[in-house]
Amino acid sequence: MRIISETTELGVTERAFELEVDGERVPGILWLPEGAEGARPLLLQCHGGTQHKRIDTIVARARSFVRHHGYASVAIDAPGHGERATEEDRERMRRRIAGGLRALGPEELRAMAARNAQAVREWKAVLDAVQKLPEVGQGPVGWWGLSMGTAIGVPFVASEPRVRAAVLGLAGVRTEEFEQLARRITVPVMVMCQWDDEVAPRDSVLKLFDVLASKEKTLHANPGRHVEVPAYERAAWEEFFVRHLGRAV
Amino acid sequence: MRIISETTELGVTERAFELEVDGERVPGILWLPEGAEGARPLLLQCHGGTQHKRIDTIVARARSFVRHHGYASVAIDAPGHGERATEEDRERMRRRIAGGLRALGPEELRAMAARNAQAVREWKAVLDAVQKLPEVGQGPVGWWGLSMGTAIGVPFVASEPRVRAAVLGLAGVRTEEFEQLARRITVPVMVMCQWDDEVAPRDSVLKLFDVLASKEKTLHANPGRHVEVPAYERAAWEEFFVRHLGRAV
Repeated sequence: MRIISETTELGVTERAFELEVDGERVPGILWLPEGAEGARPLLLQCHGGTQHKRIDTIVARARSFVRHHGYASVAIDAPGHGERATEEDRERMRRRIAGGLRALGPEELRAMAARNAQAVREWKAVLDAVQKLPEVGQGPVGWWGLSMGTAIGVPFVASEPRVRAAVLGLAGVRTEEFEQLARRITVPVMVMCQWDDEVAPRDSVLKLFDVLASKEKTLHANPGRHVEVPAYERAAWEEFFVRHLGRAV
Repeated sequence: MRIISETTELGVTERAFELEVDGERVPGILWLPEGAEGARPLLLQCHGGTQHKRIDTIVARARSFVRHHGYASVAIDAPGHGERATEEDRERMRRRIAGGLRALGPEELRAMAARNAQAVREWKAVLDAVQKLPEVGQGPVGWWGLSMGTAIGVPFVASEPRVRAAVLGLAGVRTEEFEQLARRITVPVMVMCQWDDEVAPRDSVLKLFDVLASKEKTLHANPGRHVEVPAYERAAWEEFFVRHLGRAV
């Protein structure tokens, strides 16, 4: 793990890093309280398709968890996204955004699955690396990821015992393989469902909620399309993670 | 409106009252901040079937809204409940509890509809009466009612423009008439769904959420049976009402 830059603003230190995983350069950002020492809860944030590690909402959430609850938070660019996007990737994403969002077809789901398996390996390597830092340590880990962040999050959380709570959603059960992974998740999960989601059909998201093996799971559904999650849910996510992972301040 | 008794404890005044509506004596309780003056948000709390106006959860919620947010809150005994239960009513409720909860049949739903129409008239009279008190006034009104509190709440909220936000749920759309009433509700609503509800089938509750005309509505679903709503939802209800009705402290 190589540190590229570090800046501190209003008590929050933002550290850009890169890590080599399976021969690929994975760029990431780690947020920490200024001068942090010792273990603390860690929030992993996985962006959605066409987004990247430093979109406004991820930065805002990281800063809020760091400042109000003493968390560490980390985000990385998924394969084909952010700094890792080729010109071809960028063109594909431009077309996808311009054409209006829609549910992926079976072939796209298969291509996505291979990429997501790679993303899961990368997240495990990133988690290993940041937990070795004494200012992060072996505290409880949370996963926040909607849409593609759930396509990656379900296999990640299902296979990663260090994750103790997850916010998932805006993605649902579309394949038998995905359902089997979801059935292996036992930690507390909050599932977000957009009632008029044009990308993740409502029933597939309700099915995801239904099949999770978690004894404690909660579904928040709201009217609106894929990218219209209401702002008031931010407080619900914060309350959810603090309830399950605690605080470090 | 006749005041029967008044006690104050830890800053919360609890006033027992009775009101005559359509020749029936309706007993109720009004909670207020000690020494309250002027208008404030008012939370109407409608208990569920077999319960009464002063069950623990209603008292706890009233005290919390009064102390933390300066609200007034009111609860009354529904027809055939609490002080209004005849020996026959009590025997019927004992049998219902002993036999295990289950969904009501069509005949029971019809009998219930007549009783609920009466309850709606009573709530309107109670709202008229308490809003005439200067210490309650014409502030924004919220409705909290699950299960039977939704069977009564949907026709009440649909026909009562003073209600500005409602928590409903643990009851769903079972008749065409109820659906038409739900379709007339336009204020913000939070719908509670118990995923394994043996009284209000999950799909009927999702249908209730679906048909509400409210632009802002939010569904919270959790695993468990009818009476197993998780304790953490209390904070969500408080946040919901404060967001929509404001505070008076």
